[in-house]
Order: sequence, then C-alpha cells, then structure tokens
Amino acid sequence: MQAIVNISLKDAVLDPQGRAISHSLTDLGFNEVTDVRVGKQILLEIDENDPARLRQRVARMCETLLSNTVIEDYSIVIPDEE
Amino acid sequence: MQAIVNISLKDAVLDPQGRAISHSLTDLGFNEVTDVRVGKQILLEIDENDPARLRQRVARMCETLLSNTVIEDYSIVIPDEE
Repeated sequence: MQAIVNISLKDAVLDPQGRAISHSLTDLGFNEVTDVRVGKQILLEIDENDPARLRQRVARMCETLLSNTVIEDYSIVIPDEE
Repeated sequence: MQAIVNISLKDAVLDPQGRAISHSLTDLGFNEVTDVRVGKQILLEIDENDPARLRQRVARMCETLLSNTVIEDYSIVIPDEE
C-alpha cells in the first residue's frame, strides 16, 4: 500500500530556497507570485494492508526519521484510504 | 490563490536519497517498507483568481524553472479548483 508524506517548514522558519525561487520567478516575468515555500514529498511503498495501521506506522517513521519536528510539519496521505 | 506543485524523479531515474531513507527505515525496524522515492513539494501563493488560468501559468513556471523535465515529472494541484 502506498503512503505519501508531505513535509513543510513551519511558518515561523525562514525558507531561503523558497525566496530564491520567488525572486527567479519574478525575474522571469511571473509577477503574480506572492509567496513560495519549498517542502519535501516522500512516497513510501509499504507491505501493510490495513490503512489505520499503515497511518500509525508512517507517523512513527516521521517522528523518528523522516521529519525534523522542531522546524518541520508533516502530513500523511493514504491514497487507498477512501 | 494557492497552487501546489509536486515534483518527482521519473521512474527510470535512480533515487539515492530514497534508497538511503529506505535503508535507514529498515535499520530502525520498519521492515515493511519496500520502496521510497523522494520528491519536492512547492507551495505557491499567486495573485490570480481564475483556476484555469492559474493552472496554465503554473505549468509554464514548471516548464521554465521549477522542474527539470529531463529527469523529473510534475503535477499541479489547485486546492480551490473543486
């Protein structure tokens, strides 16, 4: 079963990569861009068929390895959950 | 209006970061993980109220700057589109 983890910097944390992209887009003529934030998206293929248990396991993976919870927020999407 | 761009390596492209995460998860006891791919998620705040036109503009941003289309695929999500 697939799980998707979206990791983004907390709002209070500066995002220099996002600012660089924002400036480059403006330089290229995309003046309508007002803010850019860059995060990670991790796609996991996991041998687990119960969505609830899958979500629990992935949350533990986020807490222990995938996300730096001091400066990052994470959200978990299980496409097969519906 | 917000637009989200998800960028992932094409399937044929090796993902060393994903492999490193996969090995680390296995070492930590998450033996059920069979595959990991790491991509980027870019959150754009854009001064544009028409979802169709927004998608068109963001696609052009992807082609010119955000994505390296030789080795990466991108998908655009407009949360307000529904």
